[in-house]
Amino acid sequence: MSDHAETTVQQILASERFRRAAETLATEHDRTVDDIIRLTEIEAPSFNENVRARTWHDMAKAHGLDDLEIDAEGNVTGIRRGIGNGPLICVAAHLDTVFPGGTDVKVRREGTKLFAPGVGDDTRSLAVLLAWLRALDAAKIDTRADILFVADVGEEGTGDLRGMRHLFQRGRYKDRISAFITVDSPNMDRIVTGGVGSKRYRVTFKAPGGHSYGAFGVVNPMFAMADAISRLGRVPVPAEPKTTYSASVTGGGTSINSIPNSVWTEFDLRSVSVRELNELEERFLRIVDAAVAAENDIRSTRNGPVSAEITPIGDRPAGHTSESHELVRFAQAAINAKGFETRFESSSTDANIPMSLGIPAIRIGSGGTGAREHSLEEWIDVEPEASLRGMEAGLATLLAVAGVV
Amino acid sequence: MSDHAETTVQQILASERFRRAAETLATEHDRTVDDIIRLTEIEAPSFNENVRARTWHDMAKAHGLDDLEIDAEGNVTGIRRGIGNGPLICVAAHLDTVFPGGTDVKVRREGTKLFAPGVGDDTRSLAVLLAWLRALDAAKIDTRADILFVADVGEEGTGDLRGMRHLFQRGRYKDRISAFITVDSPNMDRIVTGGVGSKRYRVTFKAPGGHSYGAFGVVNPMFAMADAISRLGRVPVPAEPKTTYSASVTGGGTSINSIPNSVWTEFDLRSVSVRELNELEERFLRIVDAAVAAENDIRSTRNGPVSAEITPIGDRPAGHTSESHELVRFAQAAINAKGFETRFESSSTDANIPMSLGIPAIRIGSGGTGAREHSLEEWIDVEPEASLRGMEAGLATLLAVAGVV
Repeated sequence: MSDHAETTVQQILASERFRRAAETLATEHDRTVDDIIRLTEIEAPSFNENVRARTWHDMAKAHGLDDLEIDAEGNVTGIRRGIGNGPLICVAAHLDTVFPGGTDVKVRREGTKLFAPGVGDDTRSLAVLLAWLRALDAAKIDTRADILFVADVGEEGTGDLRGMRHLFQRGRYKDRISAFITVDSPNMDRIVTGGVGSKRYRVTFKAPGGHSYGAFGVVNPMFAMADAISRLGRVPVPAEPKTTYSASVTGGGTSINSIPNSVWTEFDLRSVSVRELNELEERFLRIVDAAVAAENDIRSTRNGPVSAEITPIGDRPAGHTSESHELVRFAQAAINAKGFETRFESSSTDANIPMSLGIPAIRIGSGGTGAREHSLEEWIDVEPEASLRGMEAGLATLLAVAGVV
Repeated sequence: MSDHAETTVQQILASERFRRAAETLATEHDRTVDDIIRLTEIEAPSFNENVRARTWHDMAKAHGLDDLEIDAEGNVTGIRRGIGNGPLICVAAHLDTVFPGGTDVKVRREGTKLFAPGVGDDTRSLAVLLAWLRALDAAKIDTRADILFVADVGEEGTGDLRGMRHLFQRGRYKDRISAFITVDSPNMDRIVTGGVGSKRYRVTFKAPGGHSYGAFGVVNPMFAMADAISRLGRVPVPAEPKTTYSASVTGGGTSINSIPNSVWTEFDLRSVSVRELNELEERFLRIVDAAVAAENDIRSTRNGPVSAEITPIGDRPAGHTSESHELVRFAQAAINAKGFETRFESSSTDANIPMSLGIPAIRIGSGGTGAREHSLEEWIDVEPEASLRGMEAGLATLLAVAGVV
């Protein structure tokens, strides 16, 4: 832990203005909870975040952000200006949930617990961004950096980080953001500094097929597929940087007495290292080619050869932010100061995109507790003590990064 | 071609009594067609043949068979006695069709063509057996052998030859039948002398599974399965006696980012040789064990090992009747004499069971033409000329085998 980071955070936490901001978080906590419920009850499956985006846009409007808008990809973006000539830092929460349209998203309250799909991942964070804006304004806190507040689309599954890709690679803030914090899910103790990259493929092996007895001897796409899976299973990968693969889901075939026309498997390749992931991907693609060639060599292609149709179904870049980077140290200091243990983790979050571009990025929590994410039994606890401690830790992190005047 | 077989068949065909029998087939052809339609329109999926069985039983009753009954498995059996002290030979057609209950089995007639699921495979043959009985009775033909007429259950798919297993291995005629003819589907030109045996398995590979990234390094049942398939694909099998294998249908897996708990493949092993099929089966079962052991060796079993659940889903014994056997020569001579080309084939029919027990057995056709078996567009042609020629060839075969007094 650097003295600088600890000192900076301690000064912020001890300041009169931060105390006022924390007070505002406390007095406005019921409003924050109302915001969580309101946003949670607007369904927002990936690729269908627009109603929730519009609602968050209108809620943010009250807080006087500059350039508040919904960008071409569907992200809501708006700037809280610093004192001028500072860098641009970004804090984000994602609008989308894993739950398909039609899922019952009504929030059930039991004491301080809120039950609803998506309530913690990541709807609570959307409300926390608004709470931070109110606290900063009430306390009249000025920052050196401009802070870009973002409610982004496409973090989950097939969304494949499309919101972040737009923000960092195509939109108006492209090449301007110098640090990135995503607030994703409640728990405070995990600081994500590693962005696990993934490449996902569905490979369909096709051939003419035929009767299992009558056409025996012709190529069987099942053998090509099995060979590809077996070869992948023998690929050595480093434990550090952690690199993994899986043959995950499979299907196909006509009937017990038929050589299949078509069988498929879905493959998941991951690494925290861009280089390792690219190497693994190249090796995997060569393996598929080799397995197809081997089957066409071993058995007869008189009715036609086996071929492989390789369809990318996911591509998340890997990345990493050094645990010694100031951004990480500020977060660790602020979260520890507010009484939480911290550990570093690798995961797949919105931070993958900036990490992959060399921009320092982390994931922190939105405060309080919660569990069962990605299940219909998802819940969060909005009990004020731990919730406010977490929100204060996050706000202190943001201010340490942005610099308080 | 043996002179004996040709001579015997020529004598039968030239006899006055056979001419009378053939005349009866001709004059009663409309009745035979009516019987085909009546029986076809009674649905009879494998394991649900009882209504059709009862109907055939009652139709056969008019022809004075001895010991006419429905046995414990559901086969209808009845004997046309010979002159005494002769052997027992058996002629059969199967009651069941591949079509599930609820399939529209109404016969559509276009000219001499009848369209309906199951009409040719094998309902026509059931009516032909009755036509032969009427012809034999009208012509007062006595045979040396007793002839057991059988309408049997469970020939198709999952029926797995249960009717024949009962008849030859458990029922009252066990160990008494010295030759077997199954009349199965119309076409006359193929004499089945090889019984393709099959062993079918569904193998489910199970393991604890886990997150594709978080749990990487633990055993993945997909690798064990792929290894088993790959090893099978490298097994050399003889072209003669023809022996084959297929990995045919596959499925399983949880999600793209999960190491699966369970994946499965269905395997089809076949041979015309009992010994080769048994060897292949043993080798296959050893391969599954070896693939499971290898995966448990290569990756971590800290959460539990991979295991394989091996479920037999089909078992048809292989067998063969020598093409030089009298039974085959009689059939070939009779069918050629009636103007049809003949060739020998291996297939999976009711004859597999007696063949596997060393009892001479063949499949012949019921006469006429037909196509699209096992499809909803199945049809037969009952045009009298080719139909009667075929029925005469079959009857002459039966009489040559049974011996005419």
